[in-house]
Amino acid sequence: MKKYVAELVGTMVLVLMGCGSAVFAGGVADTVGAGVGTIGVAMAFGLSVVAMAYTIGNISGCHINPAITLGVWLSGGMKPKRALMYMLFQIVGAIIGSLILSLLVSTGTHDGPTATGSNTFDPGNIAQAFIAETVFTFIFVLVVLATTDQKKGAGNFAGLIIGLTLILIHIVCIPITGTSVNPARSIGPALMEGGQAMEQLWLFIVAPFLGGAISAGVWKFLKTDD
Amino acid sequence: MKKYVAELVGTMVLVLMGCGSAVFAGGVADTVGAGVGTIGVAMAFGLSVVAMAYTIGNISGCHINPAITLGVWLSGGMKPKRALMYMLFQIVGAIIGSLILSLLVSTGTHDGPTATGSNTFDPGNIAQAFIAETVFTFIFVLVVLATTDQKKGAGNFAGLIIGLTLILIHIVCIPITGTSVNPARSIGPALMEGGQAMEQLWLFIVAPFLGGAISAGVWKFLKTDD
Amino acid sequence: MKKYVAELVGTMVLVLMGCGSAVFAGGVADTVGAGVGTIGVAMAFGLSVVAMAYTIGNISGCHINPAITLGVWLSGGMKPKRALMYMLFQIVGAIIGSLILSLLVSTGTHDGPTATGSNTFDPGNIAQAFIAETVFTFIFVLVVLATTDQKKGAGNFAGLIIGLTLILIHIVCIPITGTSVNPARSIGPALMEGGQAMEQLWLFIVAPFLGGAISAGVWKFLKTDD
Amino acid sequence: MKKYVAELVGTMVLVLMGCGSAVFAGGVADTVGAGVGTIGVAMAFGLSVVAMAYTIGNISGCHINPAITLGVWLSGGMKPKRALMYMLFQIVGAIIGSLILSLLVSTGTHDGPTATGSNTFDPGNIAQAFIAETVFTFIFVLVVLATTDQKKGAGNFAGLIIGLTLILIHIVCIPITGTSVNPARSIGPALMEGGQAMEQLWLFIVAPFLGGAISAGVWKFLKTDD
Repeated sequence: MKKYVAELVGTMVLVLMGCGSAVFAGGVADTVGAGVGTIGVAMAFGLSVVAMAYTIGNISGCHINPAITLGVWLSGGMKPKRALMYMLFQIVGAIIGSLILSLLVSTGTHDGPTATGSNTFDPGNIAQAFIAETVFTFIFVLVVLATTDQKKGAGNFAGLIIGLTLILIHIVCIPITGTSVNPARSIGPALMEGGQAMEQLWLFIVAPFLGGAISAGVWKFLKTDD
Repeated sequence: MKKYVAELVGTMVLVLMGCGSAVFAGGVADTVGAGVGTIGVAMAFGLSVVAMAYTIGNISGCHINPAITLGVWLSGGMKPKRALMYMLFQIVGAIIGSLILSLLVSTGTHDGPTATGSNTFDPGNIAQAFIAETVFTFIFVLVVLATTDQKKGAGNFAGLIIGLTLILIHIVCIPITGTSVNPARSIGPALMEGGQAMEQLWLFIVAPFLGGAISAGVWKFLKTDD
Repeated sequence: MKKYVAELVGTMVLVLMGCGSAVFAGGVADTVGAGVGTIGVAMAFGLSVVAMAYTIGNISGCHINPAITLGVWLSGGMKPKRALMYMLFQIVGAIIGSLILSLLVSTGTHDGPTATGSNTFDPGNIAQAFIAETVFTFIFVLVVLATTDQKKGAGNFAGLIIGLTLILIHIVCIPITGTSVNPARSIGPALMEGGQAMEQLWLFIVAPFLGGAISAGVWKFLKTDD
Repeated sequence: MKKYVAELVGTMVLVLMGCGSAVFAGGVADTVGAGVGTIGVAMAFGLSVVAMAYTIGNISGCHINPAITLGVWLSGGMKPKRALMYMLFQIVGAIIGSLILSLLVSTGTHDGPTATGSNTFDPGNIAQAFIAETVFTFIFVLVVLATTDQKKGAGNFAGLIIGLTLILIHIVCIPITGTSVNPARSIGPALMEGGQAMEQLWLFIVAPFLGGAISAGVWKFLKTDD
């Protein structure tokens, strides 16, 4: 039970801080007190994972992302029932994160170009968005599976490396889709925003799951000895 | 006694360097020699914690923040008398840090939009400021309590993770309040600046203490086995 | 065999993400959703190495760079046949990375000032480009050889330090050549782009190999006791 | 003897890459291929120390800074003769670093606002410059002495923490003096540039030495048990 609550808290923090950086600091990088631009938002998402990895990592493993949970499940690292419970609590945590963010927006001003941090793409770029979310989730979940592997992994470095990898992925992918690679992270803001974010939400569920599934296969191949 | 002096030195460095970055480099990010903007100031606060964590961590634990000391106290990690002494020396250290910063400002020029690095908010956004400081301090102190936990913690990584988390929190919260999450860090500059910074100082004491107290409760719940 | 596939995957990720950051986020640092500029591209290359170092490091050693493989070979760390196979698979991986990037470019829009992330220089600055690529590859491969040394090395920190060093080198060298210090990283984009990138490709093969060879000699000297 | 050569190489890399970032990438942060501004130059100096700490740390301890060597000497960590030899080789390394940078500048174009990366200050701000260099060197060398302490230190984390601390110090101090906190780092560029950089060089020798000496005293006090 503590595991599930931990996943809820971790995903709540990821959505609140990652999306919150876009809402409050997503403006042009400028004088202190103004925005941090794309690079600052990329750092906010990645550092949220770093923070949570070492806070709830020894409780739940800190997936805080249904695509990671799928990858771990398909790699044989957890049972289906527990995986589904993880995903459920991650989605609830993401919604709570988005609700706290809405509360902050409703009680004051914000300068960023978004009020929710939702994921969207230009409808004409749908193939690009789908390929990007699939390929980048594949890379992200591959790093997660490899660095947390008991035999070939990174030990206590894993959480830091996974967070830095998420910064990397946001740097490349924010201009394309805002970067999801995490269905829960997209569901929370889409529910608050509606419109295009809800219409395009399916892509931010299907593509990350596809990417995570590919990671499980590739890592199974790579990890075994010759 | 060495513990208390260490807390004084650590908080002095945090206020001098964190607020100092806003004073000297808080201008628009520009040519080398000009400012670093919001992201650079966020890095300055977080890296000050990284630096001090590994300098005085093995002496005093490097709280350098009364909200952290409150969280540790309420989690049963220290006795009330020692906690109050920690807070006292942290506040004295913060005032010394602000005094050194004033000396630097008085002996030359500075380009940042503030001469003290004080925390303030638009009076119309008071609810937003209170919620932000409470929620973000909760997240920050939760990370501190978890990563420094003897059984479930991050070992030697803790100081790095805590500092990176403070960068994260500043990225999101600088546009709202300048980011306190630390009563001592707000008291020093407010004493130098007076005016609005003094009038609003209560919020940067009450909200961080409230956030730190919530962290203690949540971590007590999460850390115990199912 | 797994080693070779790992080198292919790692170099593919480096080229896709490093060059991809220039293609999609290489514009002026601006509002979230816009570019990240030189510093963000530097971070993308370095963090790609961090990510891959802890993903395939325990499989192949994560060279993902023929200049590193040359340095390891000349230092006596691997046999010629294996070194040549590493280089071959690195080049194939780089080409696949560039192909995926081309696919992303062809299915949507991109804002960066390049469509491939190729390395080029002003023809009048050829001596500067050659010296820069030689000296900076020497520094990079020296860090690699030293940090991965079994006796004098950095242990589990090596991958992080090597990636951070690559960020450093990109900060200095992007304005000069875009930064190669890695023949495979230059070959992939040059094949996609042709023109000047193909004409100048020899320099991004010869200079990095020269730099890597110097590193092997210097490290052999430094590592032995007085 | 290897120790001295290692100090030479390390200081050469620090000056070449740190000052080189100001020379080639010191312009306004802009599209990839343009500058990185103050924050990028701060990262270049700090990451040079990170890179060298894990490359020559196990050979010479990686001081690459006469103020650090003075601090170690006064703390009883090394004999006077060795300390003076360290300083000598550091200065020679810095000069070689500046010479390589001059070669790069002379063979092509550069966009930064400086051709050498020298330290200077507005003559009217001399008191500010002196206080800043003294106080910031005190903080820097205190972190070095504490993190490398055998009993209370940071173990294998020390090099990373020291480099991150140097980033912090550059963020705050670049707008004041360009940041020295290292006499060797100032001597190399001043010899290339002459003029104001030579006239003000004394300050960048005296103030860092003073700061380093204070660190030795403070650390001696803090490290002993109550």
